[in-house]
Amino acid sequence: MKIGRVIGNIWATRKEEHLEGYKLLLVQPVNVIDNSRDRVPIVAVDTIGAGAGDRVIFVGGSSARNATRDNMTPVDATIVGIVDDLELDPSI
Amino acid sequence: MKIGRVIGNIWATRKEEHLEGYKLLLVQPVNVIDNSRDRVPIVAVDTIGAGAGDRVIFVGGSSARNATRDNMTPVDATIVGIVDDLELDPSI
Amino acid sequence: MKIGRVIGNIWATRKEEHLEGYKLLLVQPVNVIDNSRDRVPIVAVDTIGAGAGDRVIFVGGSSARNATRDNMTPVDATIVGIVDDLELDPSI
Amino acid sequence: MKIGRVIGNIWATRKEEHLEGYKLLLVQPVNVIDNSRDRVPIVAVDTIGAGAGDRVIFVGGSSARNATRDNMTPVDATIVGIVDDLELDPSI
Amino acid sequence: MKIGRVIGNIWATRKEEHLEGYKLLLVQPVNVIDNSRDRVPIVAVDTIGAGAGDRVIFVGGSSARNATRDNMTPVDATIVGIVDDLELDPSI
Repeated sequence: MKIGRVIGNIWATRKEEHLEGYKLLLVQPVNVIDNSRDRVPIVAVDTIGAGAGDRVIFVGGSSARNATRDNMTPVDATIVGIVDDLELDPSI
Repeated sequence: MKIGRVIGNIWATRKEEHLEGYKLLLVQPVNVIDNSRDRVPIVAVDTIGAGAGDRVIFVGGSSARNATRDNMTPVDATIVGIVDDLELDPSI
Repeated sequence: MKIGRVIGNIWATRKEEHLEGYKLLLVQPVNVIDNSRDRVPIVAVDTIGAGAGDRVIFVGGSSARNATRDNMTPVDATIVGIVDDLELDPSI
Repeated sequence: MKIGRVIGNIWATRKEEHLEGYKLLLVQPVNVIDNSRDRVPIVAVDTIGAGAGDRVIFVGGSSARNATRDNMTPVDATIVGIVDDLELDPSI
Repeated sequence: MKIGRVIGNIWATRKEEHLEGYKLLLVQPVNVIDNSRDRVPIVAVDTIGAGAGDRVIFVGGSSARNATRDNMTPVDATIVGIVDDLELDPSI
């Protein structure tokens, strides 16, 4: 999984029908070592109530689809956790 | 999922038979923060009526295949939404 | 899917038995905007009769396996179309 | 699979329910040739008792989910081994 | 699939039980155009008897798992062929 920051929302009226009802969030990947950000945000669905400003854990691939509990949802990125805290020592 | 711009079409007369009937679009990934584009366009199938100039959401991996509703379609990128609007604050 | 140029062949006498009978081609990814090529060619199986010099569409991931119609084929890249023509306007 | 160093832990109280009970570790990918590290750590679940400082082997994609023995676990990176020793000759 | 050179072995006593009995090899990806190597070696399982110094074809993703004939093996890279010969013309 990767860590990212929710930086916004995206709307699509015309969309694949299995996406109906999902909130689509813009998530920018974050490097936890120096808090720098990757330049290209991705679009993730949210199933746990994340919102703008939250630091989140998101999953990719077929597991992103599983996380929606509907095998027909056409997604490849899903938010699965909101980060409370992290403890790291890069010098280990 | 990723965001891209539809920049063209691609035709293949000789192709895997399960691709018959699909429109193949050239999609260039876009960074929504500064609207810059990635250099390498990909080929995506379209199931929602997207066309040249549209800003779209596309999905990769096995979910791209699911989005076509036929598990034999040999695709790894499918357009699943046309972007109406987005709201973002990269400084969050 | 991605676009590439078939630049050669590769042979492996000792191989996983489900690869028996497949032609293994070297495919170099191409950027259709300026026809530049990626430096690292990949190995793809061919199911539609592509050959050296052809510009092709290839699929990755589990869909590459599906395209062979045998779920045991250990492949992650399969040629699924030969490009006839493309029309693009990068300035869109 | 890739090789990485466990550099920390991450906690998420609000998370997808199938992640309950898993330890979430921060793993930084390592290049075994010169022991340099990639800049962006990932989040992996642990099923074998790895901890901070361990050099580990982690798997990605749908196999990361399989490694948890629960097909509903929304993960794309799982630690599957702790490195005891390696022997390499890059000049081969 | 990709081409790589087997540059070493890696051992893990404590590991996911479905990895028991597999040889774990360090494989460095190779660019066949100029024989240059990618900097980061990966860990692949071997099912065909490859060894140090061999130039191999390896497969990624869920097909790597299929190649082991056991859907529970937690792998994402498997050696599926030993390269005998290749013929390429990058100028095509």
